[in-house]
Formats: sequence, structure tokens, C-alpha cells
Amino acid sequence: MQIEYYNPTRLIFEPGALARLGEVAGHYGQKALIVTGGGSVKRSGIYDRALASLKDAGIAVAECSGVEPNPKITSVRRGAQIVRDENCDVIVALGGGSTMDASKAIAAAALYDGDPWDMIFHGQPDPHIPTSALPIITVPTLAATGSEMNMAAVISNEETQEKSFMQAECLFPRVALVDSELTLTVPQDQTAYGVCDIITHVTEAYFNGVDGTPIQDRFAEGVILNAMEWGLKALADGNDLEARSQVQYASILALNGWVNAGTNGGYPVHMIEHTVSAYHDITHAAGLAIIDPAWMRFAAEHRPQKFVQFAERIFGLKAKGADDLDCALKGIDRFEEFLKSLGCPTRFSELNIDDSLITRYAQDTLRIVHDEDGNLPARPAMTEADIVKVLRSAL
Amino acid sequence: MQIEYYNPTRLIFEPGALARLGEVAGHYGQKALIVTGGGSVKRSGIYDRALASLKDAGIAVAECSGVEPNPKITSVRRGAQIVRDENCDVIVALGGGSTMDASKAIAAAALYDGDPWDMIFHGQPDPHIPTSALPIITVPTLAATGSEMNMAAVISNEETQEKSFMQAECLFPRVALVDSELTLTVPQDQTAYGVCDIITHVTEAYFNGVDGTPIQDRFAEGVILNAMEWGLKALADGNDLEARSQVQYASILALNGWVNAGTNGGYPVHMIEHTVSAYHDITHAAGLAIIDPAWMRFAAEHRPQKFVQFAERIFGLKAKGADDLDCALKGIDRFEEFLKSLGCPTRFSELNIDDSLITRYAQDTLRIVHDEDGNLPARPAMTEADIVKVLRSAL
Repeated sequence: MQIEYYNPTRLIFEPGALARLGEVAGHYGQKALIVTGGGSVKRSGIYDRALASLKDAGIAVAECSGVEPNPKITSVRRGAQIVRDENCDVIVALGGGSTMDASKAIAAAALYDGDPWDMIFHGQPDPHIPTSALPIITVPTLAATGSEMNMAAVISNEETQEKSFMQAECLFPRVALVDSELTLTVPQDQTAYGVCDIITHVTEAYFNGVDGTPIQDRFAEGVILNAMEWGLKALADGNDLEARSQVQYASILALNGWVNAGTNGGYPVHMIEHTVSAYHDITHAAGLAIIDPAWMRFAAEHRPQKFVQFAERIFGLKAKGADDLDCALKGIDRFEEFLKSLGCPTRFSELNIDDSLITRYAQDTLRIVHDEDGNLPARPAMTEADIVKVLRSAL
Repeated sequence: MQIEYYNPTRLIFEPGALARLGEVAGHYGQKALIVTGGGSVKRSGIYDRALASLKDAGIAVAECSGVEPNPKITSVRRGAQIVRDENCDVIVALGGGSTMDASKAIAAAALYDGDPWDMIFHGQPDPHIPTSALPIITVPTLAATGSEMNMAAVISNEETQEKSFMQAECLFPRVALVDSELTLTVPQDQTAYGVCDIITHVTEAYFNGVDGTPIQDRFAEGVILNAMEWGLKALADGNDLEARSQVQYASILALNGWVNAGTNGGYPVHMIEHTVSAYHDITHAAGLAIIDPAWMRFAAEHRPQKFVQFAERIFGLKAKGADDLDCALKGIDRFEEFLKSLGCPTRFSELNIDDSLITRYAQDTLRIVHDEDGNLPARPAMTEADIVKVLRSAL
């Protein structure tokens, strides 16, 4: 086990934290760019409360609104231009994962003279990894991506139909200001997708990581068990603040490095999903819900042991032995049933996606991420044929 | 649940990491003060390897050796003077918890004009909380205190017979360089005490924290289960690098904030132990092993539920109900048996400590830490009589 962990984001997690935005932002700047998505934060009044808190603290504000659900590089270029035009010195991301991801890219793009797409890993031989960015404060309004407390951002390019990511230490938000009250009004479908997103983040590292990580396994199982339990409660009663808080805490832990430190896992399901959703405007988590169980069945055949542990510890099943494939597959069935109980799709046909581009998804995935043998990093590493097989099994 | 979490320490955890010390230190300074303890790092050759790595990277070295097992404020004063005399700009802590704690205090004291004892919370009305310190790199040679990745230091004052702590964000090490190979030669008794230390750190937050922290509970249980399992393996075969690594990872997690974020628990067992070991030169973890089960029995009577959960999830016991005190106490018995199996004492008589100072321990504890009612913060909050009762039950 080798761990290299670093995460300097300050997490402030408490109901009502939004009121502290101005005080927090005041430590980092005098003029904030508020980045928002499609307008729900304005309809809900969250935007006005954020603005009031900033203004009370004497912080001037510029705005970059309309970031797309799969944030586009054009929005990043636009945001960076506003920062320059308006002399902003701190970025406030007010929204879901897309808004936070766009904010990170904007914070770095504002200090970079080249085109921001250079910073996104899209298969180019020498990506530009930024070393400086404006300070970022994330105020998540959804419990899903975990972007509020990590250094990654996923950005799409409509022209080239690519969706990929950037990672750099300068992208760590200075503060993740997490107010679960903001998630009380999240509609049922997005609540469900958030839970799916959280669990898939955890299962990726859990199943694709190195052997010999028993503590990380327990942490992952703890997050999964609680995301399932509290996720169903949040779905049943959106106003259950306790449930909303637990789900949101799970969402942060799923990707802030505490659970997967040293596991060094690939993210095959995410990588495949990114290429699918680069062609179809589907919700990220809907793609995950379809691909994850299909991928699990493929991987369990190669290495049932970890899937047996999953079946036993998450669903209380009893295996006949450590490599009881039947038990492993039953656990995956139970997981798929759970995703269905959330209301997630589990087959592409439910989203009207057929097999016509299936080879292209596989090829694009491998173009963006591949090991030295040209395969997708995962356990087991996946060839183009493997990816097609998994996708086909989920039609 | 309210969380405020911040930990900017970079964790580099890999066998052989000691060889990277010079490379790592070079990011923070040109002249290092190496702080060491009683000499075991010299006898084992670890010191020479550290020195070679620093010299290879062109880093000059001064030394502060001889830090005591319970580090004294006099060593802090001495170390700070060496830093000033030798113009050191980075502190390398090479040793166990005492060495790391002294290093933190030295790093802050070197930049503070007053007496370093001002920085230690010993009941004074207005402690000096430092806001700057020299960069610190911790290289732990023991798996125990977790000091390598947090902002706390415990320091003793022989003149006043006090033992207390300091906490400040500037004390976070820049890097925790963790090489489990360095722990292969740790003798059995210290290995056992380390495991006890780790588990007690976790149980304090687990049992004294706020309600409604189900994810933190799972994390705590994960650390405890693995510390027990791998601790016994490390004790059985000191050369088992896998076991040493798992125990060391557990030791870091026990106090780096990942497990107890938002639990806001008191540390009653630690607070009581500190006052006992201020009067007797006993190993910190030996004191913990005696006091922890005694405290648990006291607390379980007031609130059996969490102890029932502990009994069920750690020892696989089956309770008759959520408040089955009998099951709770059986779990504590099993925990005490585990401590005995490590070779830890579980009664003061084993250390030749009688009841003659028992009231003074209680009074000193409350002088150093108390809530607004004058009681020790814990669940339940403890009066002087409660502390005496717990200590008496462990004679």
C-alpha cells in the first residue's frame, strides 16, 4: 500500500452555513465571481441569500450564470473573461457538480494565457497542468459529485464531442461551505441520481483498487451503507434534514480522498460513462446506474472475492467461500435492485440509446485514458472488446 | 452534525519513504533541525539514513537530541534556542509521538518571543496560540500517537508537575513522511502500547461524541477492527511489514480528523491519564489501557446504547435490545481481554500506583479542562467524584 494524500480544503459543514459565505469569502478576496447553473438557485432564493451575505461583508460581485449540466469549455472561456474584465479575485461556486467543476476550470483559466481546453486531459501528449488558480469557495446545492472538496473538474467540448477532466492541486477549493438545508428542495430524481453518483464513486475505487486495503474497504462500506440507508430516507421525505445531511456528508467522503487513499483504483465506469454522455445529453448518474452493475458482472467473473465481500458486508448475504461467484452475482443483483428502487434506469434502452455508437464509445474511452498496453486501467484492465461487451450487456 | 475540518498535511505513506526525506525537506528549507528522542534512531541506523538523504539533497543539519518520552518544556526551550543559534528553517521530527510533539512546539517557539509554556493550555486564562511556525516534517518511527498528521502536541512541565497540550493550525506538519519499515524493529511492548493508543484515540471520540454520526461510527469501527487484527499480527511477528503498515495507517487515521470529524467528543480518558502520568513516569498507553475500560463501564451505565453497538460490531455479540447493559458490559470485558492479550496492564496496581494521590489526579484534570459547570467534558460530563470513582475502580 502506497499513499500520497493531500487535501488542504477547509470543510465547513453545518445547516445554515450559507449565511457565513461573506465572512468566509472575505478571507480570500474583495470581489467575487459567483458561478451558477441553470437558474434554480435564483428561483429558490439561495442566490439572493448568497448575494446578501457577500454584500454584508463588503464583497463586490460579478456573475457567470448558465453553466450547463455537463459544463462546456465555452462556459469556462466565458467565465475567465468575466474574471479578467471585472477584476475578480475569488470564485464562488453556487450550484451542483457542474457549477463547481466549471468554477475550478475558470479559476485556473483566468490565470492562464492559453486556451483552457489545453488544461483538460483529452488525449493530447502534453496537457497544461495549471500551478495557480484564483481561490475557490464551493457552496454545493446538491449532494452528488463530491467536487466541493477535491481537485478535479470534468469539462465537455461540444465541438469535438469530448468529455474529460482536469486535475491540479491549485484547484482544491479553499473552503467547501456545505449547508445541507440548501439540498432540501432538490427534486426526487436528482436526489436519487446523487445517491447513485455517491455509491458509484465509492465502488469504483473499492473494486478497482490494489489488494491489501482493509481499512479503506471498511470506510467504503460505511459510506455505501449510509448512502443507501439515508438516501432512501431523503427520497421518501425531501425535508428530512438529517437524511439530507448524511447523504451530503457521504457525497463529500466519496471523492475527497479519505475513503480511497492508497487504493489507486481506476475509474472505468466513469470513463466509459463520460464518453457515452459526450454523445447523448443524459444525466451523468443515469449513465453510471446503467454501466456500473454491468461492469460489476464482468469484473466479478475475473475476481469474485471482492464482490463476495461486498455482497456479505453490504447486503448481509452469506457466501459458501471467498470466491463464491454465485454469491457475488447475487450481491450485484441486489445492488441493481437498489438502484431501481431509487428510480434510476439500469438499461440503455430506458434512455433510448441503442447500440449504433457502441464501438465508438469504447474507442473514445481508450483514446482518453489507457495504460501502456492500450487498455482501460481497471481490474481487470479492459480492451475495446471488453468495453463493448459490458455496454452491450446493458442495452 | 456540524463539522469544521482542515488538515493541510501532505501524507506520503510508503515503505522506503525515508530515502525521500532530503527531496521532501528541500521544498521547505536549506537547514534542518533534526529532533530525536533517546537514541534508538541512532542505534538502529535510521538517523544515519535520514542524515544521508538530507545531505544528498544539499541540506545542512543541526540536531536536538534527547527529547524525553513525555517531552518536557525544557526540551522545547532548548530546541528553539538551537534553531535560533543555527538559523534552521525547517524542522524534521525523527522519532515517536514525543519527538513529533516536541518538534511542533519547537517550530512555534522558535518564532515566539515569550516563554513556550505560554502556548501550552495549562489552565491559564489567556494562552498564547501561535499563528506561525517553521515548516515541520514528521518521520514517525512508531505507530501510535498519530501526531504525524495533526496540529496537537502534548508537553509536560516538570517544575509544576503539569502535562497538557497545545493546538494551532500552524502546527500541522507540511509533510508526514511515513515509512512503515522504520517500525519493524519496534519492540513488542511498544508495539502493544501503540495499538492500545490507537484504539483509545478512536474510542474516545466514538463514545463521547454527539449523536447522529453513523458514518463516523463505521469509520471508527473500521479502524478499531483493523488495529486489533493487524496489531496482534504485528505483535506475533514484528517483521510482518503488511501488519506494521496497517497498524501505522490506523494510527494516523485515529487522530488526523477523518474518523472523528464533527463528533466533537471530549477526551476524558486522555485528560485523566495525562494528570496521572504527570505524577508517575508511566507509558501514556499503559495509563490509557487501565483507565479506558474503567471509564467505559462508568459511561455505559449512563448510556448503554453506543456500547451495545460497540459490542455487536466489534466483538460480534448479540444484544437483547439497543440498551442491553449486560451486552454492553460484556463488550467492555472483551475489550479489556484484548488489551490484556496485548500485554497491557489494566489495573494501577500492576504499575505500583496506589490511591494516595487519586483526588489530586481528579482535581488536576478538572483544572486543566472543564466545561462551564466545572465538569470534565465527556458523555456524561464528569465531576471530581466521578473521576475518583473511575480511577478507584481501576486500582
